Amino acid sequence: MRRILAIDAGGTSSRAALIDLSGNCLGYGRATGGNPTAVGIDAAVTAICLAAERACAGNASVTESGSFALVSLAGHRSPGFVDRLSGQFAALGIDEAPIIEPDLLGTYFSGTAARDGYALIAGTGAIAARVADGRLETVRGGNGWLLGDDGSGFWIGHAVVRAAVADLDRLGPATALTALVLDSLAFETTTEVDGGRPEALNRLTHTLYEMRPVELARFAPLAFDVGARDEVAYNILSAAGSALAETLAAVIDLEADGRPAGAVVLGGSILAAGFLRFPAIFEGPLGAVVGSADLIPVPDGVVGAAVLALRHAGVDVGDDLHAHLRVGIANSAAGRA
Amino acid sequence: MRRILAIDAGGTSSRAALIDLSGNCLGYGRATGGNPTAVGIDAAVTAICLAAERACAGNASVTESGSFALVSLAGHRSPGFVDRLSGQFAALGIDEAPIIEPDLLGTYFSGTAARDGYALIAGTGAIAARVADGRLETVRGGNGWLLGDDGSGFWIGHAVVRAAVADLDRLGPATALTALVLDSLAFETTTEVDGGRPEALNRLTHTLYEMRPVELARFAPLAFDVGARDEVAYNILSAAGSALAETLAAVIDLEADGRPAGAVVLGGSILAAGFLRFPAIFEGPLGAVVGSADLIPVPDGVVGAAVLALRHAGVDVGDDLHAHLRVGIANSAAGRA
Repeated sequence: MRRILAIDAGGTSSRAALIDLSGNCLGYGRATGGNPTAVGIDAAVTAICLAAERACAGNASVTESGSFALVSLAGHRSPGFVDRLSGQFAALGIDEAPIIEPDLLGTYFSGTAARDGYALIAGTGAIAARVADGRLETVRGGNGWLLGDDGSGFWIGHAVVRAAVADLDRLGPATALTALVLDSLAFETTTEVDGGRPEALNRLTHTLYEMRPVELARFAPLAFDVGARDEVAYNILSAAGSALAETLAAVIDLEADGRPAGAVVLGGSILAAGFLRFPAIFEGPLGAVVGSADLIPVPDGVVGAAVLALRHAGVDVGDDLHAHLRVGIANSAAGRA
Repeated sequence: MRRILAIDAGGTSSRAALIDLSGNCLGYGRATGGNPTAVGIDAAVTAICLAAERACAGNASVTESGSFALVSLAGHRSPGFVDRLSGQFAALGIDEAPIIEPDLLGTYFSGTAARDGYALIAGTGAIAARVADGRLETVRGGNGWLLGDDGSGFWIGHAVVRAAVADLDRLGPATALTALVLDSLAFETTTEVDGGRPEALNRLTHTLYEMRPVELARFAPLAFDVGARDEVAYNILSAAGSALAETLAAVIDLEADGRPAGAVVLGGSILAAGFLRFPAIFEGPLGAVVGSADLIPVPDGVVGAAVLALRHAGVDVGDDLHAHLRVGIANSAAGRA
């Protein structure tokens, strides 16, 4: 029987589900980040294949003719990456070149089977799309850490370290973020002054400039940690929530009754943390943008990758099969047969 | 007779003045950027020495015993840089190791001989200091493009390209900056769409990510070009002026009568352009911060380097000698004997 490997290759983790053409989940596997832009081509190929192998463990029939893999992935993919991936999949017995789809579609179809609607992802970056007839019609945002991505994990983490630097430099208000940033780097605070500047400030800026800028996303969780009691952190999160709502608004095409056509699916770690811990800041502005439509948060894009793969194989995926995929993959991920 | 080489090594240009112990300017030379952080150690050493050679041209007596060089320079300097510079100066007949002083002091003493006051520099970066008894007592800002420098050339240039990207992405308002940014990169605007995004946007972001981030400072002049007729550009400049005033305010120690002790010296290309073309935005907020004190804009830090060098040689530099240095160096720079 033909088998399908549906893979969601994110920046910090990868997930693979082995499914059959009826949408039954036969296996599930996780591995580290599989986005070549985020982790490099070598590490991405290794992680994706490891997740795939784990999903296939004990399922010899994956080598059946007509089996294929579909990978949901953010950003541009180089031919070199796809070639490397094909070679590795061939070793798993899959002869067809893997199909690569945008993570916006993987995320979107993780939330709904409807062919028209919207997706917003806020992880390290931030990007929104209008999906029409199952394809990306309009994409907004996603311009990367230097040029856009307002409200993203990088954007929040960057604001966190800038706030800590401004606090130490007495150019900004005192904030609990400063101690958290210094703690997270295992710095001890000193009162020494060097060249007219606090020694701790010199050490902090030196350390932060040693990082790749996009790594500043790692400081975003600190804002969530103290947002309930620290005004600076709260204001960063509040501005992030508003910026994400603006990004979604840029793709929303409100119908006459104020209800957007189709579902609004939300993915990425920032939206997940925001909905859980600061709903007023994140769910509030997004709700105002979408009117009476449902906001559907999803944990990742692996169900959507399965939807895209089944449709590629000619299977009609409606609400029932979508629900079957969701439950089956969730159970398999949780270790329940 | 002992001679002194007073050198201001900036990020985009270097200036050297050859002076005697009476403060007479005997020669002047310019060269390209001499800041090792901005241009690398090799290029910085070459530029500084070229400016120095040009200042010394026709002045054989620079080799007199006791002659020395003082370099005013932003940022940290590595021992490797100072060693390389010493070697090159030795070839010019100067045996002593060059004295390195912060550009904040070079800028400050270019505006005044007073040993107590304030300096604010806004070039590619932004930094302010309180000078007490001729030394830097407190320094604020200068945390670099990623972590601070609000209102600087990088900060403005970064805001310019983000505004252009947001405009093309319809995530922000239309602005005249967009066409200027595309023109400056010799891009033709197209209406093509690629993957749900404007093709021009994809091309622009790709090109900008190929640059070193700090190079975005090159787009700052575009905001000055259209600030009088474009609201987005005007708002960027207005926010820059306010941010620079806040940086200065963080070092200002207002006396009881609201007048700060000593002069307030202003340096760097952004403040020069701001005072000339948008005084309401730049001079206004700074004036509000310093009360009735005089704001003294200076074109560079070479006069201040001469002041620091003369004092190092034991010469008392008061207002008269300061004026003599200013006039002599300006005349020499303009090619008048």
